[in-house]
Amino acid sequence: MEQVYRLTISCPDRVGIVAKVGEFVSSHGGWIIEANHYADTSVELGGSGWFFMRHCIKANSLPFGLAEFREKFAAIAEEFGMDWQINDSAQAKKIILMASKESHCLSDLLHRVHSKELFCEIPCVISNHDDLRSMVEWHGIPFFHVPVDKNNKQEHFDRVNSIIAEHKADSIVLARYMQILPAEICQQYAGQVINIHHSFLPSFAGAKPYHQAAERGVKLIGATCHYVTEELDAGPIIDQDVMRISHRDSIEDTVRLGKDVEKQVLARGVRSHVEDRVLLHGNKTIVF
Amino acid sequence: MEQVYRLTISCPDRVGIVAKVGEFVSSHGGWIIEANHYADTSVELGGSGWFFMRHCIKANSLPFGLAEFREKFAAIAEEFGMDWQINDSAQAKKIILMASKESHCLSDLLHRVHSKELFCEIPCVISNHDDLRSMVEWHGIPFFHVPVDKNNKQEHFDRVNSIIAEHKADSIVLARYMQILPAEICQQYAGQVINIHHSFLPSFAGAKPYHQAAERGVKLIGATCHYVTEELDAGPIIDQDVMRISHRDSIEDTVRLGKDVEKQVLARGVRSHVEDRVLLHGNKTIVF
Amino acid sequence: MEQVYRLTISCPDRVGIVAKVGEFVSSHGGWIIEANHYADTSVELGGSGWFFMRHCIKANSLPFGLAEFREKFAAIAEEFGMDWQINDSAQAKKIILMASKESHCLSDLLHRVHSKELFCEIPCVISNHDDLRSMVEWHGIPFFHVPVDKNNKQEHFDRVNSIIAEHKADSIVLARYMQILPAEICQQYAGQVINIHHSFLPSFAGAKPYHQAAERGVKLIGATCHYVTEELDAGPIIDQDVMRISHRDSIEDTVRLGKDVEKQVLARGVRSHVEDRVLLHGNKTIVF
Amino acid sequence: MEQVYRLTISCPDRVGIVAKVGEFVSSHGGWIIEANHYADTSVELGGSGWFFMRHCIKANSLPFGLAEFREKFAAIAEEFGMDWQINDSAQAKKIILMASKESHCLSDLLHRVHSKELFCEIPCVISNHDDLRSMVEWHGIPFFHVPVDKNNKQEHFDRVNSIIAEHKADSIVLARYMQILPAEICQQYAGQVINIHHSFLPSFAGAKPYHQAAERGVKLIGATCHYVTEELDAGPIIDQDVMRISHRDSIEDTVRLGKDVEKQVLARGVRSHVEDRVLLHGNKTIVF
Repeated sequence: MEQVYRLTISCPDRVGIVAKVGEFVSSHGGWIIEANHYADTSVELGGSGWFFMRHCIKANSLPFGLAEFREKFAAIAEEFGMDWQINDSAQAKKIILMASKESHCLSDLLHRVHSKELFCEIPCVISNHDDLRSMVEWHGIPFFHVPVDKNNKQEHFDRVNSIIAEHKADSIVLARYMQILPAEICQQYAGQVINIHHSFLPSFAGAKPYHQAAERGVKLIGATCHYVTEELDAGPIIDQDVMRISHRDSIEDTVRLGKDVEKQVLARGVRSHVEDRVLLHGNKTIVF
Repeated sequence: MEQVYRLTISCPDRVGIVAKVGEFVSSHGGWIIEANHYADTSVELGGSGWFFMRHCIKANSLPFGLAEFREKFAAIAEEFGMDWQINDSAQAKKIILMASKESHCLSDLLHRVHSKELFCEIPCVISNHDDLRSMVEWHGIPFFHVPVDKNNKQEHFDRVNSIIAEHKADSIVLARYMQILPAEICQQYAGQVINIHHSFLPSFAGAKPYHQAAERGVKLIGATCHYVTEELDAGPIIDQDVMRISHRDSIEDTVRLGKDVEKQVLARGVRSHVEDRVLLHGNKTIVF
Repeated sequence: MEQVYRLTISCPDRVGIVAKVGEFVSSHGGWIIEANHYADTSVELGGSGWFFMRHCIKANSLPFGLAEFREKFAAIAEEFGMDWQINDSAQAKKIILMASKESHCLSDLLHRVHSKELFCEIPCVISNHDDLRSMVEWHGIPFFHVPVDKNNKQEHFDRVNSIIAEHKADSIVLARYMQILPAEICQQYAGQVINIHHSFLPSFAGAKPYHQAAERGVKLIGATCHYVTEELDAGPIIDQDVMRISHRDSIEDTVRLGKDVEKQVLARGVRSHVEDRVLLHGNKTIVF
Repeated sequence: MEQVYRLTISCPDRVGIVAKVGEFVSSHGGWIIEANHYADTSVELGGSGWFFMRHCIKANSLPFGLAEFREKFAAIAEEFGMDWQINDSAQAKKIILMASKESHCLSDLLHRVHSKELFCEIPCVISNHDDLRSMVEWHGIPFFHVPVDKNNKQEHFDRVNSIIAEHKADSIVLARYMQILPAEICQQYAGQVINIHHSFLPSFAGAKPYHQAAERGVKLIGATCHYVTEELDAGPIIDQDVMRISHRDSIEDTVRLGKDVEKQVLARGVRSHVEDRVLLHGNKTIVF
């Protein structure tokens, strides 16, 4: 993979954005190797009237680095009222993983990072149980066991919060962590905390979704990867998928089959996040 | 397709059911060409403890017809407390279709019947609008336009009910009929009325499910084929499926994409019903 | 759907294309509501080194029509060595459908056009059998029965060719036409003839693909929508899909199940073609 | 999971098989908790005329164990000319894994065994490279590095063969082993060696299937899990699946995306094999 700068922009739509950004990049010799645009419908038609774009520019085609890019681009950004960022694909994002006792999502993500399929740095894993320590440590990654029970939630999350701060994490991935994050953490890391919920949301939010699914007699089960917000299982959805089940599948079968959907959907969502493919707008995502 | 008798059985599970039924069939020379069994887990394990089976027996391998089969089999059925029926595959089920203005599900079902892909008889189509008359009549099927508005619901459903009765329908398929059936009809035709709902239930029950889906920002849309019960969109599910959408898809795109899922899921559900593949148990289905 | 001009461009990749095109459009006040770009990897990395784009520009945002657009844009197109075209979304493409005896694909496409789900004009249907005449004529579309046998192939295709010419068709869709087009027609209408093949190509090209699939014992069957070239079932693929089958499915079941995949894949491919979403490059397609 | 005996039977179809087997089981008090039957169509209709069944009988409902079951059942088996076996679900199958350098399939299978999602014993892993030793040994499983090059193939496979024999393996799984097994091993372990091929067979057999797929411009990639026979990539298929790709996906993307399909399809195939769900007939499988 060649080194690129990933420029993402959200702003109110109007004539001339693509031209202006394109002209800026090409005037400095920048070579765009991947470009995505999306214009939501106008406000009169029930849309937001916003415009979203993501450009990958070959790093070595530009005569300057990120700092200078940011400086030079600021005027355009201001003119169009852009929410924007630019990142260097060679700079690994720091992602803290949080888990509980179930290993499938954690093991899957660790393997993808280990085998260089997913490019990011895992500064540490935090868990409220000690079960997965050996698996994590085999990967050479520090493991923090921070127990939690109904009497020490505040203390638990204070410790979690300080570990996150210490490791200067860019993002946090809840790989079946099974605890509800307090509102402060949701707010402090808004758009940076990714969860996998083991149902096709909005069906079966909350506890024991596979049991809820069995109770209702659905013919497909699913999983949803979403950003965490204060409202449980209600944040912006990044990716979802489903798997067919039948009357033959017991709850145990369903739980087992669901694991495969969970880990795939989580891995896809994390990859999109890591590659700056997800643009947030209100409670929705644009995934380029 | 060779002519078969389709025997379906539901009863409390215990040792010897398969042996007894198998022995009965083979003692008369009956050749079973398709057999399905399912035993739900026992009550102690949280299941219903019921057993379900469906056998297709070559009609010409038996020395008697359905009437005599029913007579001879009655003792076994009683011994095991069976809910059971036996049908002749050569006897087309009579299915009344009900629609509104949207033609995709109706057109799809009519084509499947017309091209002999789906074996059943459509004695008539009932609609609260006159728009689809020509399409239906081209197939040589009577079309009843029974208008409805908020002031004549009782009258509308009385007329609908009498048309159903006149045509001696086995089943009714709501092919995007868009009206809520009154409780009397739901009860009278329990297990015989099939609906297609344009969402992946239990998400987005009720009105405008695609708008609800867009509002929530889901990444897959779906459709659900289910038996109608008094509670709206809450009856036993026969089949479901989904389709991937993205931020690019407007509401209009979503509605259009959804039509393909709706008609496929409905057609699959109706086929399963027509072939006596669906066994009902409480609010769940066993689909062999 | 608001009226747009659809601009599609293929050219060797280099710095400045997006900027130049964007600047041209915005300098005339053009509002881009949908934009797609794709840069194939460079020749050194094994790619073609080509760049592809598709823009939808609001027709009423430009001060001129297609003729003047073409005139003004010509200089840029020449500078970058572009293969390009611009079409008006309000101008229905004329698509001739060809079929044989099987009705599922034809019926599906006709219904989509009839219900305004697919925007195009069907000037006529040509078939080597008379079976589907009534279905076609119900839609108010002329039906040409042009019989073919092994002794009159030349005559058959001369007649087909003259019907196509008379109706000034933009494109031809082989909706299970089951005859091999002669090389002259393939060449004359290169990139304009779409076929549906009832297998997941390149597996099972040629005759009786479902029988070939059954023979091999595959667990999924498929369908492929592709542009027709002189080499049988080897042209550029527009879309493909599959469906799960099992040992339970007989050849008849497989043929029936396959129909649903065929008609869906064909409909998706035709829609992409109609909306100018398919860019051809060598034997591959870029589908925006 | 409660302990069951898994009885699988293949024999020429005729009246009375189900009755006879059912009567045998129930006469000894055997409780069947899962039953599958499949009758291929008769020879006149182009089928094999064979019958296949699989029963799971609660171990503690029978008054005897496997040895006595086998003895008592032998007369029935002979009467109907059955190929049959009965296995104890509590007896873990011994499965040797063979791999090369790619870790995704191996890691996935090891995790499923480790987390008790897949019930079998891995007596050892054999690889022609040493890269995956640490991963395997972390699981407490012996790792044999048996190098191979074009000059020592015979020696390599002699060593492989003796390791298999020493460990009394029931089956061998080629988890991206990338070497062609010699005919002797294929014959000796017929129906016991499972391979994952990284294409949707029969498309793209042999080397570099993803490159072949990219060359052809397909829109879906796939993977196939099959029993190994002497003819390369031509053995009976157990399971297959596909994943959508687009023009945007480079070869590297395709290889990466394909890994997810490979490991899922292999895991499903291995599970079916381990649970005695796969019945072989000629070059096809019945997967219950």
